[in-house]
Amino acid sequence: MRAQHKPLRHFLSIEQLDQATLSHLFEITDTMIDSDMRTIKKIPLLQGTTVTSLFFEPSTRTRTSFEIAAKRLSADYLNLSIENSSASKGESILDTLYNLQAMQTDVFVIRHSVSGMVEHLSQYVAPHVHLINAGDGSHAHPTQALLDMYTIRHHKKSFPGLKVAIIGDVIHSRVAKSQIQALKLLGVQDIRAIGPTSLLPDHLDAQGVTVHHHLQEGLKDVDVVITLRLQRERFANPAVPTAEMYFRDYGLTTAALAHAKPDAIVMHPGPMNRGVEIVSEVADGPQSVILQQVTFGIATRMAVMAYLMGHNHANETNYF
Amino acid sequence: MRAQHKPLRHFLSIEQLDQATLSHLFEITDTMIDSDMRTIKKIPLLQGTTVTSLFFEPSTRTRTSFEIAAKRLSADYLNLSIENSSASKGESILDTLYNLQAMQTDVFVIRHSVSGMVEHLSQYVAPHVHLINAGDGSHAHPTQALLDMYTIRHHKKSFPGLKVAIIGDVIHSRVAKSQIQALKLLGVQDIRAIGPTSLLPDHLDAQGVTVHHHLQEGLKDVDVVITLRLQRERFANPAVPTAEMYFRDYGLTTAALAHAKPDAIVMHPGPMNRGVEIVSEVADGPQSVILQQVTFGIATRMAVMAYLMGHNHANETNYF
Amino acid sequence: MRAQHKPLRHFLSIEQLDQATLSHLFEITDTMIDSDMRTIKKIPLLQGTTVTSLFFEPSTRTRTSFEIAAKRLSADYLNLSIENSSASKGESILDTLYNLQAMQTDVFVIRHSVSGMVEHLSQYVAPHVHLINAGDGSHAHPTQALLDMYTIRHHKKSFPGLKVAIIGDVIHSRVAKSQIQALKLLGVQDIRAIGPTSLLPDHLDAQGVTVHHHLQEGLKDVDVVITLRLQRERFANPAVPTAEMYFRDYGLTTAALAHAKPDAIVMHPGPMNRGVEIVSEVADGPQSVILQQVTFGIATRMAVMAYLMGHNHANETNYF
Repeated sequence: MRAQHKPLRHFLSIEQLDQATLSHLFEITDTMIDSDMRTIKKIPLLQGTTVTSLFFEPSTRTRTSFEIAAKRLSADYLNLSIENSSASKGESILDTLYNLQAMQTDVFVIRHSVSGMVEHLSQYVAPHVHLINAGDGSHAHPTQALLDMYTIRHHKKSFPGLKVAIIGDVIHSRVAKSQIQALKLLGVQDIRAIGPTSLLPDHLDAQGVTVHHHLQEGLKDVDVVITLRLQRERFANPAVPTAEMYFRDYGLTTAALAHAKPDAIVMHPGPMNRGVEIVSEVADGPQSVILQQVTFGIATRMAVMAYLMGHNHANETNYF
Repeated sequence: MRAQHKPLRHFLSIEQLDQATLSHLFEITDTMIDSDMRTIKKIPLLQGTTVTSLFFEPSTRTRTSFEIAAKRLSADYLNLSIENSSASKGESILDTLYNLQAMQTDVFVIRHSVSGMVEHLSQYVAPHVHLINAGDGSHAHPTQALLDMYTIRHHKKSFPGLKVAIIGDVIHSRVAKSQIQALKLLGVQDIRAIGPTSLLPDHLDAQGVTVHHHLQEGLKDVDVVITLRLQRERFANPAVPTAEMYFRDYGLTTAALAHAKPDAIVMHPGPMNRGVEIVSEVADGPQSVILQQVTFGIATRMAVMAYLMGHNHANETNYF
Repeated sequence: MRAQHKPLRHFLSIEQLDQATLSHLFEITDTMIDSDMRTIKKIPLLQGTTVTSLFFEPSTRTRTSFEIAAKRLSADYLNLSIENSSASKGESILDTLYNLQAMQTDVFVIRHSVSGMVEHLSQYVAPHVHLINAGDGSHAHPTQALLDMYTIRHHKKSFPGLKVAIIGDVIHSRVAKSQIQALKLLGVQDIRAIGPTSLLPDHLDAQGVTVHHHLQEGLKDVDVVITLRLQRERFANPAVPTAEMYFRDYGLTTAALAHAKPDAIVMHPGPMNRGVEIVSEVADGPQSVILQQVTFGIATRMAVMAYLMGHNHANETNYF
């Protein structure tokens, strides 16, 4: 059955989505994965389409995931290293974008250190061009949240009734912000943020998120445990505990995980600091779905690109 | 009808072209563009061909344009970053070239800071190999000139009788040198160079180019206005005016442009210094064809590659 | 006729090969080359397969050769620049590998400065993943040795009875170590290492390699002359002769080469220091097969990738 939602032109944040669109994206993602749930298909859906990645911040994981996704859809993929680019000749971001648009780019995948930058740029591009936010400042990382939700859905089937804990540097994390929005949109009512005061934003409770400063307490009976990467540069702030102290209080160990439900899944957006926010025993253990997130990430990004390019009905063609 | 010219093996400069070859390249370019004149086709003409770009100077715009062009022709495209290459292990350019030739490169796209370098290299490559000059020192940038001429032809239909003004740093500009050669070859008799003495070469008049030191006077009644990028490093020369002074005297404003014909087109090879050589009102205004140059650049480079690889008859196959 | 050997999962060193596998790889390589022996075919054998190169040391030649080989087999090719990667965010090599594996990489091409690193990593990857050693420390460079043997076989037809001289920095050379293993496996009994004491390892004679400190003496009547690159950083060691002294004693000149058989072939793994280990007259002369090594390198790497992916019978499909 066809959803009655208005199709999106850009993929900027979880906030712009409604529940029907989210479900619909899950269904398209399903079709990108083979029945073994481990292999991503290769399909000619975006043949002749040019996807350009514009990363103004370094990234391997996300950029590579989009590159593989674009190639699996048979698109032409262009990777712009901004360090060596016209940007260094003083050209504005907007002029760079206009030029690549004039060079037939259909989809831009953009990461930038300034919050709101991708939405800002979206006001200026031509009608046939689609932007995907691959992370802007501390604002949003919607494809990461989408792949995380897809992973939860794969293991837990439905969202209402779930208890989800997010541990760590929520205040600086665009991933956490997008995850919280997505969880709420999907009807999760018990969302918990666990960490020291210095790493949690104010007003989380006003957003319906319960704050916990004790790890074991926060993990009690949860279905999903999401640990966040603790950026090393945070330790420069004297209010933030040292890596050792952080690990002692918030490091996800087997003992701590025992407070969650026995079938709780463990997630991490990567790259991991083993021994800081998570121990290897858990990261590589039976409850970890961390590498599955990576595999589903490709299928999710394929789905977003296909959707934006107008292939938005799961039963439209035999590729789905 | 088939042109009676001798086919070129390399694309080194405008000087090596005759008028028939130029017309012929325009015709091939036409076939690379869809009837809407905004979309570049994807065709399998160079399937199995390897195109390698060797840029010894940084570039985004030109390199990316060639990359998209090669991929639109279904070639395998190899982008060599010379900074990380064997060049840093002391290998000579020629040995690098010989090796890539032995690795089945068919077409090399080369940019180098030394004038004449690409022509020099062309004496050493194997008979089946084709070189394209993507800019050598201050000598030539023939594919840029070709796309510029194609853009002029698109808007003005024929060349004789046109008045064309080139504003700015002509003395250091390989673009301007190639443009002047192309305009003369196409029969343009009124070519004007506008700028301060320090940025114009001697003997322009001997080449049939009129020199103007006053912008408004030089723009009077022209059909085509080409502004050049003013490299920031030029300002180190005390004979060159500051950016502010340059803008006051030679910046292309709406008021200055009013001296040209009402249907004059405005061109710039990019990247632009807005507020130095051109104001945004003109760069983004109705007379600007700057982004169209970028789109036509891809089609032009596809045409040059196809032509060199022997697909040199506009009606040869159904791809044209 | 089908060889009775156990198929390899990874390509880590020449030591793991038996003679039948080596012959078999030569036969697959034969099928990758057109009958003119100069052109590499383009075939859809690895369509849908993802090949990822992970180079922790700079390289143009080898990385490019693998890239072209992968694309000639129609694989999706991913080139990871480790400098800009998650490695810089403190992620371990193994986590990087696990992530790329979760992103559907089938074949990894790995170069690392630590001897034994690729074999070490091979213990951790998933069953469907294949690793190719593209050079580890001073330990091994098996695809280089394989292409070298293929080149010798092409010119000399069979190996027993051949006399082969390797000149230069054998002690630091992973290429030389892999070559010696391959030559012995193929039945070559007269292998000679020529160079100053400071550049030759101990116990070469225990490996069946004759040591020579005089170039002319060592080259006497040989069928194959392999010169090695002399890394500039070696000259920092006071025991190593200067470039001038090295050239005088071990530089391969026309006069020195005259001591070899008249039909001896000259090889070099590249990149060459002309005027140090070899003169241009020899490097570019009629006995040189240096650039043919480069061409055969692509075919050899195609063969290795195809073999590892299970296309291991030369008569299996019509692509062979």
